[in-house]
Amino acid sequence: MNDAQHTADPGRYNAAVRPPIPTAEALSRTALQALDSADPLAELRQAFRLPDDLIYLNGNSLGPLSHAALARLTQCASDEWGDGLVGSWNHADWVGLPRRVGAQIARLIGAAAAEVIAADSTSINLFKLLWAALQLRPQRRVILTESDNFPTDNYIAAGVAALAGSGYQLRRVSRDQLPAALGPEVAILLLSHVNYRDGYRHDLRALSAAARDSGALSVWDLAHSAGAIKLEIGADGADFAVGCGYKFLNGGPGAPAFAFAAERWHATLQSPLTGWFGHQRPFDFAADFAPAAGIDKLQVGTPGILGLSALDGALAVFSHTEPAALQAKSEELFELCLRLLEQQNLGEELVCITPRESAQRGSQISLRHPAARSLGQALAAAGVIGDFRPPDVLRFGLTPLYTRRVDIFDAVHTLATIMREQRWQRWQQPAYQQDLLVP
Amino acid sequence: MNDAQHTADPGRYNAAVRPPIPTAEALSRTALQALDSADPLAELRQAFRLPDDLIYLNGNSLGPLSHAALARLTQCASDEWGDGLVGSWNHADWVGLPRRVGAQIARLIGAAAAEVIAADSTSINLFKLLWAALQLRPQRRVILTESDNFPTDNYIAAGVAALAGSGYQLRRVSRDQLPAALGPEVAILLLSHVNYRDGYRHDLRALSAAARDSGALSVWDLAHSAGAIKLEIGADGADFAVGCGYKFLNGGPGAPAFAFAAERWHATLQSPLTGWFGHQRPFDFAADFAPAAGIDKLQVGTPGILGLSALDGALAVFSHTEPAALQAKSEELFELCLRLLEQQNLGEELVCITPRESAQRGSQISLRHPAARSLGQALAAAGVIGDFRPPDVLRFGLTPLYTRRVDIFDAVHTLATIMREQRWQRWQQPAYQQDLLVP
Repeated sequence: MNDAQHTADPGRYNAAVRPPIPTAEALSRTALQALDSADPLAELRQAFRLPDDLIYLNGNSLGPLSHAALARLTQCASDEWGDGLVGSWNHADWVGLPRRVGAQIARLIGAAAAEVIAADSTSINLFKLLWAALQLRPQRRVILTESDNFPTDNYIAAGVAALAGSGYQLRRVSRDQLPAALGPEVAILLLSHVNYRDGYRHDLRALSAAARDSGALSVWDLAHSAGAIKLEIGADGADFAVGCGYKFLNGGPGAPAFAFAAERWHATLQSPLTGWFGHQRPFDFAADFAPAAGIDKLQVGTPGILGLSALDGALAVFSHTEPAALQAKSEELFELCLRLLEQQNLGEELVCITPRESAQRGSQISLRHPAARSLGQALAAAGVIGDFRPPDVLRFGLTPLYTRRVDIFDAVHTLATIMREQRWQRWQQPAYQQDLLVP
Repeated sequence: MNDAQHTADPGRYNAAVRPPIPTAEALSRTALQALDSADPLAELRQAFRLPDDLIYLNGNSLGPLSHAALARLTQCASDEWGDGLVGSWNHADWVGLPRRVGAQIARLIGAAAAEVIAADSTSINLFKLLWAALQLRPQRRVILTESDNFPTDNYIAAGVAALAGSGYQLRRVSRDQLPAALGPEVAILLLSHVNYRDGYRHDLRALSAAARDSGALSVWDLAHSAGAIKLEIGADGADFAVGCGYKFLNGGPGAPAFAFAAERWHATLQSPLTGWFGHQRPFDFAADFAPAAGIDKLQVGTPGILGLSALDGALAVFSHTEPAALQAKSEELFELCLRLLEQQNLGEELVCITPRESAQRGSQISLRHPAARSLGQALAAAGVIGDFRPPDVLRFGLTPLYTRRVDIFDAVHTLATIMREQRWQRWQQPAYQQDLLVP
């Protein structure tokens, strides 16, 4: 990929050009390859260093390394740190890096640049915002969420409720009980926009409005949507949001996360983690804490510049496209995967639990099978990396930036072979069992 | 530097071989150069990529890049992330990295390997431990600290007290009022072991004992001592500690910090930040939080693997020496600096506020002058990087791993020239003024 070319013509990927979804008759590898060649996103795959012998359908767990991320990380480590030393806090504007990275993320989630900061981890950012939001609704003591929310979100929320004191609680209800569970006790509606397990996508606009109408604040976890789905969280009325840097944003393992606070809350929002980088003037070394005016008040300690630099580079890849184009490609990959599974007669054995309606899903396909874990291991051994989520879900991330139609074709055909030969049974034998740990 | 050589003979730097401090007559550059050549630590300077034209006396703010840190970071980004992708959580044991880095730090601070974890920032780790320590002393509501403690520590402590509720407070007293201020109300004695401004070092053993005798817990910030001073915080009775990865440990800008909890508290300690990496079995995706048994309970979100890898590499340099050897060199550099300042008749104009008694100071020398800020800028322009701390302190970090005697000689002679020519006045003119931001 020639970076200069893209810079010269940033609009070339802007149009949500969407090739026709192939008919059942056109599901041949050759036909899909032709569609890949004509895809305006095809060239962006070259921005990544994906091993040739792998089909990587796990970018919703850990996004791959891009050349830009590695180059930016190396520049930071070697030039800025190695040569520039402490002066780089000024000369390379390390001090401004959390805001600059935040501004790039803002574009992808439909927020104003000054409403997003890159910092800490998703869990820690959620802690800050949940605590802060509770203070903004002092008469209400319930954080409402979904039972099947991502575990760490619910752990953190339960921790915040415990810290807040007696009467405070995290209330977990099933998805279909939302938004009826909103009421005068509820201070915060906390939801993952896209569910990590089945890929279900909440209606962010409708639920933010329902929360607001009931007097509650909305806090969204965008970990499984930012970078793959077109988001307009500003226009859609979200109050607060957090998200992850290492999934669809491709920032690297444990990359810095982000936090969004709608501008209308900047004046009153108070972080419980009052570290010096959230101070109005950190380098005055003043005796007392005085929060920064804007989104900076959500910073805490010295920002992790190496991790931020890798994320900074990774986000540069997104400057060559638009969220709408990514979403269109994601939708097409899902439809294609589903049709291929049906064509291979896998549709009954592997039950798709991801919603068929595109507005109700994220950028993944989740298949239920009693031996999902072993299937995932058999696939990995055959060069197809998806993942397993307890108790019985085989999950494929459909990451529009670099996944090709032929990847989906090859993955489904590999899966079909494994199923036909019952090859996954081998992975149930003790000698092959290992406890796979995948964040 | 040949890494294999060092591995083959790790003991060669172990002895605290301390060349005699030069007499006033022997303060020539040639004499110091000879001492440098005979120094068993001299070869370790080659482990760092220090620009030739700089004298870097700011390793107590940002440690320099080592070849090992860059190599380890590149290996992590390129091989583990780039090629290994999500599988590296298992195959490269990213999951265990916070503990492995923690174990390396444990050796430098005199703790057991299982008592230290590398995670998050110093500020965030302090938040966790202060909150947790308050819960262990439920009848007591005061966090006692020193007025001149590092600002972010006091900001965080005041935040914890505010969160804890009515009656809780951060009580700040002057250094000489410690430990008399310990009493039945005090839950926690929070102190920086070495003061960032004047370099004063508290008696960690005596104050930990005084805290314990009064029924309080001790929480130490080791940011300005770990990696430069011989520490035995386990034997010395500290209950908890935090510290910084980017100062004397050379882990890179905003490197992950560390947290220490004495093993005797592992069973009862409860972190307020209940993220999934602090869970007993994070990858079970269980509905409810159950804390990990040991030091892992102080983890929160997904660890920042790139930052941890750089720190991992930086710490490898320390495996070629011992804290006692580092401290001996640090003491010698201080004595030398002081004698050179006196020899240049700068002793009155530049008032040394760092204690002369080696047991009472860290690894820096702080000089008071009304134009300290401008002096720091004039020095930087002449290739000597120290820093300024408000209101009037010029600070030189004396980092034993890579600072040579000739560096101190050249720095003092440059300073003498600037003072003689009053060259610093130029930096007071508006055209040269800039607001230096240095964490």
